[in-house]
Amino acid sequence: MNKEMVIVLAPDSFKESMTAKQACEAMERGILKVNPSVRCVHVPMADGGEGTMQSLVDATGGIIHSLMVKGPLGNQVEAFYGITGDGKTGVLEMASASGISLVPVSERNPMLASTYGTGQLIHAALDHGVDKLLIGIGGSATNDGGAGAIQALGGRLLNEEGKELGPGGGDLGKLSRIDMSGLDPRIANVQIEIACDVTNPLCGPSGASHVFGPQKGATPEMTAELDANLLHYADVIKSQLNKDIVNIPGAGAAGGLGAGLMVFLNGVLKKGIDLVIEYTGLEEIAKQADMVWTGEGSIDYQTQFGKTPLGVAMIAQKLNKPVIAFAGRIGDGIETLYGQGIDAIFGIIPGASTLEEALQHGPTNMERSSENVMRLMIAMK
Amino acid sequence: MNKEMVIVLAPDSFKESMTAKQACEAMERGILKVNPSVRCVHVPMADGGEGTMQSLVDATGGIIHSLMVKGPLGNQVEAFYGITGDGKTGVLEMASASGISLVPVSERNPMLASTYGTGQLIHAALDHGVDKLLIGIGGSATNDGGAGAIQALGGRLLNEEGKELGPGGGDLGKLSRIDMSGLDPRIANVQIEIACDVTNPLCGPSGASHVFGPQKGATPEMTAELDANLLHYADVIKSQLNKDIVNIPGAGAAGGLGAGLMVFLNGVLKKGIDLVIEYTGLEEIAKQADMVWTGEGSIDYQTQFGKTPLGVAMIAQKLNKPVIAFAGRIGDGIETLYGQGIDAIFGIIPGASTLEEALQHGPTNMERSSENVMRLMIAMK
Repeated sequence: MNKEMVIVLAPDSFKESMTAKQACEAMERGILKVNPSVRCVHVPMADGGEGTMQSLVDATGGIIHSLMVKGPLGNQVEAFYGITGDGKTGVLEMASASGISLVPVSERNPMLASTYGTGQLIHAALDHGVDKLLIGIGGSATNDGGAGAIQALGGRLLNEEGKELGPGGGDLGKLSRIDMSGLDPRIANVQIEIACDVTNPLCGPSGASHVFGPQKGATPEMTAELDANLLHYADVIKSQLNKDIVNIPGAGAAGGLGAGLMVFLNGVLKKGIDLVIEYTGLEEIAKQADMVWTGEGSIDYQTQFGKTPLGVAMIAQKLNKPVIAFAGRIGDGIETLYGQGIDAIFGIIPGASTLEEALQHGPTNMERSSENVMRLMIAMK
Repeated sequence: MNKEMVIVLAPDSFKESMTAKQACEAMERGILKVNPSVRCVHVPMADGGEGTMQSLVDATGGIIHSLMVKGPLGNQVEAFYGITGDGKTGVLEMASASGISLVPVSERNPMLASTYGTGQLIHAALDHGVDKLLIGIGGSATNDGGAGAIQALGGRLLNEEGKELGPGGGDLGKLSRIDMSGLDPRIANVQIEIACDVTNPLCGPSGASHVFGPQKGATPEMTAELDANLLHYADVIKSQLNKDIVNIPGAGAAGGLGAGLMVFLNGVLKKGIDLVIEYTGLEEIAKQADMVWTGEGSIDYQTQFGKTPLGVAMIAQKLNKPVIAFAGRIGDGIETLYGQGIDAIFGIIPGASTLEEALQHGPTNMERSSENVMRLMIAMK
């Protein structure tokens, strides 16, 4: 440890325990306890899912804004969006305005649930004059093909009588005419990127309605109707806009919001972790590092499928940097991660405990674990 | 890692989860998964408490024997003792024959509980022709000054009428005459070392009866009587054998068994961890090591007071070898251990879990944690 050591800290959030930024801070406290000359570079990460907006705001020194929007069932909810530190990018998660966690289980109904609030969030972000929008679309309560979001931004989706469709996937079957003349003109000048890790098509057995409808409250009858409605929606789009969306991988994400954002807002679907890596500039930052630390609440077999620790590890591996990962819970199947750039994985829990205790003491546990990893490294020098 | 790396594995047992030997094996599995060329030297450790016999037998390739003896209240119990691999040392724990865990809470009564079975265990070990006896004396149910053990070995403790005292601390007050003429003659040729970490005197406010009596079932009245009886016992010993034991530190260990073994068997009290280090030859073994791994079920502030991980660390520190410690539970106050030879401490639990789950999965958890420590070391080379 003669020259200054540089460690890039790039964890995801530890859900219900620490934001990614708090995890970075806890890691740094542990490291500096052992060697105050280490330079820690914080890159709070995310994978496009919950916490993405928070992490990108934290990573760039941005600001979080809130506003009241229509929730999935039309009631007012407070939703959030972020503007990155350079003011050029808006970051939002559809779940903040139109998420399933906003609707009590007994009231969930994708026939009625609308993405209108997500459109309002987009509108609010545009008011900041951003060039780019990053939209996370996980955790939706909706199956409306993004119709509500488009309506909130000035698009008109009309029935045979020329009247605006009502909210939710139930009315989509009545779509007769699309009128985009009133669409917010700022959309044309904004690059929209959508964090999306699913590849489901819009319709059919592996489409939005059949795969995700039931968990949003759809009965078998509703599911069939929702699927038929999305197919009709795609047909109208095809005939009037000459865009074929029905089989695009990811079109079925978030109840078809993926399709709607692609068709009407020229959105591009990308893997969430790739977007976050790009927006944080992780690769450039990691080039100067001696090693990279990452982590997430849970690390297991699933981690290889687009989760932050593996995304970070793949970047680090390309740069030939060692990667240490920390987890609140180490599950089965982690062996597969070692070959993909993660050098070692450490659990942070100090002993048998309830989940509540584990979540509550996340920062302390992370600090102690980081300290001991640093201690080991120094002892072995 | 050019030359062969040598790691000495010297954990204590992980109580109710792994013997020390099993912990060694799990550590080795984890290490060899990462680097099959590492040479792992197993030194199952203990600190004189529960598991000491098992660990010393395992460390020396010895054998465990069992026999039926009188339990604390006279009922027959199966008790165990070990003979080390060279056949020269017997190892036993008084708790195996006379331990508090052998008596249901409602029946605990130090007025009646006897160390007779411990004497029987000693007798059985002598049958193997050993030169040395190592006796662990923690966890006793008794407060009889070791009278029962002495009686089992042929010593006679007589009342005014020349009759043998009955079992337990309650009868000690009637001691009138000591007759050691019948004592097993083999005792004279055996070096007896007693693992003892307490420094309580035999009698008085910090003596055996007052400090440990209540947890063995003594009422305040019994405690007073037991204390008076031990004082009488010491008086008789003083007048008839000219040995003054009442204020020797450790004489009050195990309800005065410490005193009895010292007076009648020429036993010598030593710190448990020091004895185990000596008997295992840990220091010589560690000289050839690149590093030492240790561990225990729980590591916390208490670990510095005679527990295995710190004992191991102090040896390793003297030899300038790095020490890594593993624990099923990391408690408060571990900071104090870093300055005393332990370089880093890792918890082995993979996440929030019940104690039962944690205990059950000890070997898997140890293996995974060892693997990852090894992975980190290799990654940092």
